[in-house]
Amino acid sequence: KQTYNVVVLPGDGIGPEVVEQATRVLELISSKSDTFSISLKSYDFGGCAIDSAGKPLPDDTLAACKEADAILMGSVGGPKWGVGKVRPEQGLLALRKELDLYANIRPCLFPSESLLSHSPLKPEVAKGVSFIVVRELVKGLYFGDRQEANLEDGSDGAAFDTMVYNRHDVERITKLGAYLALQSNPPAPLHSIDKANVLATSRLWRRVVQDTVDSQFASQGITVDHQLVDSASMVMVSNPRKLNGIILTENMFGDILSDESSVIPGALGLLPSASLSGLPDGKGKCNGLYEPIHGSAPDIAGKGIANPVGTILSAAMLLRYSLNQGELADKVEAAVRKVLDAKDVGGHELRTADLGGKHGSKDVGDKVVEVLESL
Amino acid sequence: KQTYNVVVLPGDGIGPEVVEQATRVLELISSKSDTFSISLKSYDFGGCAIDSAGKPLPDDTLAACKEADAILMGSVGGPKWGVGKVRPEQGLLALRKELDLYANIRPCLFPSESLLSHSPLKPEVAKGVSFIVVRELVKGLYFGDRQEANLEDGSDGAAFDTMVYNRHDVERITKLGAYLALQSNPPAPLHSIDKANVLATSRLWRRVVQDTVDSQFASQGITVDHQLVDSASMVMVSNPRKLNGIILTENMFGDILSDESSVIPGALGLLPSASLSGLPDGKGKCNGLYEPIHGSAPDIAGKGIANPVGTILSAAMLLRYSLNQGELADKVEAAVRKVLDAKDVGGHELRTADLGGKHGSKDVGDKVVEVLESL
Ligand SMILES: CC(C)[C@H](C(=O)O)[C@@H](O)C(=O)O
Ligand SMILES: CC(C)[C@H](C(=O)O)[C@@H](O)C(=O)O
Repeated sequence: KQTYNVVVLPGDGIGPEVVEQATRVLELISSKSDTFSISLKSYDFGGCAIDSAGKPLPDDTLAACKEADAILMGSVGGPKWGVGKVRPEQGLLALRKELDLYANIRPCLFPSESLLSHSPLKPEVAKGVSFIVVRELVKGLYFGDRQEANLEDGSDGAAFDTMVYNRHDVERITKLGAYLALQSNPPAPLHSIDKANVLATSRLWRRVVQDTVDSQFASQGITVDHQLVDSASMVMVSNPRKLNGIILTENMFGDILSDESSVIPGALGLLPSASLSGLPDGKGKCNGLYEPIHGSAPDIAGKGIANPVGTILSAAMLLRYSLNQGELADKVEAAVRKVLDAKDVGGHELRTADLGGKHGSKDVGDKVVEVLESL
Repeated sequence: KQTYNVVVLPGDGIGPEVVEQATRVLELISSKSDTFSISLKSYDFGGCAIDSAGKPLPDDTLAACKEADAILMGSVGGPKWGVGKVRPEQGLLALRKELDLYANIRPCLFPSESLLSHSPLKPEVAKGVSFIVVRELVKGLYFGDRQEANLEDGSDGAAFDTMVYNRHDVERITKLGAYLALQSNPPAPLHSIDKANVLATSRLWRRVVQDTVDSQFASQGITVDHQLVDSASMVMVSNPRKLNGIILTENMFGDILSDESSVIPGALGLLPSASLSGLPDGKGKCNGLYEPIHGSAPDIAGKGIANPVGTILSAAMLLRYSLNQGELADKVEAAVRKVLDAKDVGGHELRTADLGGKHGSKDVGDKVVEVLESL
């Protein structure tokens, strides 16, 4: 019986609360499997690690993450560490770089159709939105050379950051986008987003994306179009279904666009993410960091009212991409859907505070586990 | 009697059609004024200039723009010039740089409350949205050093772009934002948008914005908050009224956020913009480029159905900021409002095709002129 080692990083704020509900789901799956078991082990990461070890990504946490089959994270940060020299998000950036987690995957869809009315968009605009933002995560402005401004003396305070990409960077993220596109039948369209009318890195991006699709994926029915980031940011609001499929983009643009898209389903607590170090095809090793897209929400931490759905769905992505258990992932997603679906379509209609309801994190976790057991 | 020289750049596609309606408005104002007249002179710019002179910004056009009190533009670009080495938007970038048009001003509001239902956002989310995006326009990734990728031989195809800012750049755009904030009573809040948790230029930006407000504007009641660009891109959809006031940001973020915001009022044809070379306080010279935010829309060019409202409102901004005629600008805006207002609130309810109606560009121009004459 195979054992998968999953490192758990509960983190700060509501992180531990939402992670607890997701690990219950993984434990249930582990206990019911004849072929594998999941071993879960928690480590300090983020603000709590700054408190305990003086840095957000302590050495033993990093070592464990490197060895792991996958990492499940809650959230990091909070006012306590917000302004210091050592900040929680530095741990996140370091982890991405150390593990070469080059592909950030952010699905934007309604985990249950019953949630349509929660969108800030009109129902007729939001209905049927279903795309995945694939964001390059270890290059670009985030990791290029930079110079901090010197504002102390009478100097001009010049600062710069550098956006850097090369062929290899763009090629591998394109392959990952194409892999995801091929999970649908017919393959989902690729929408590559850049600013090729201004940036050299975007002209590189556009050419390599197109060349990679032409030479390796066109024969499998994959198509790609190219859109400018300013235009894409409009379409995402005015007619987001036009972007259905796979949205492929670089680090900074992906940061903005994935967050922009994340409010469409109406509550940040609903959505999962994955950051992968390789193709999730079950062949090579694909270690990944899985986390809900929401922050640490210090204002509601400790109250047991945070929405655990984003973390539970992150655990589903973990099963699918790093543990090669796509069918079990489907089951977790189906269980979540049932828990969220309105009563009139046969669901349990559980609603946490972010969706205007009174159910707690544990209520949702209990019900997901219960439904999952019955599937 | 003073003469203001306004250079007109009709450009490509629907540019000439929408500009024609806006120049009618300026001509009317000129003919009725006892104190000044407006002299309008057209020049080639954009695609049509590539055809006539081999480059998008011909020398005589540039010379005229430099001499002018203000510039009214339509739109540039089209499939004919889309892919060549010489492209229309290069003219736009060159003009910004040559005239040092460092402040791009993009109001996001409903020119008439009657248009609320056209927003892709729910009415209760869109209602009352009213902010101005102030985008730094001549620095950042747009104008830093860059290297194009070499993809020909077996090379790694490395490319880079550089985001550059210094203290002076940030200081002057902050002053401009503060100037606009002071036009309201009490002053509108400033929302400065950056990515200070990652970028050195953003840390510079945040400090200089704060220092400038503290040292020069706090005593006049101006406040500033700082938000991350990813978060702002969410708030702009989920609760855009939270951003009411002045949004201050750098070039690339401003490109994305201003376009994202522009779909809120429901039709791109409605919104104006200004790009200024100085404080629009009527003291120093403030040459500016005024243009609607929409593109050249080649698909509907020549049909006389394009919405001229964005260009007419750009002419109003021209009056206000470069010609120091704020009261006349108010009148033009009031006339446009009356033309767009629904009949049940006493308006004329004219609707071009982009708003689902059958009125032509000239119908709207006629009616704006008629209402303006009566004010
Ligand atoms: C915390 C921050 C550095 C990070 C990023 O910008 O990548 C976050 O916004 C994210 O998207 O995961
Ligand atoms: C045409 C393009 C270079 C330009 C820009 O990115 O600045 C446009 O999108 C704009 O916002 O005016």
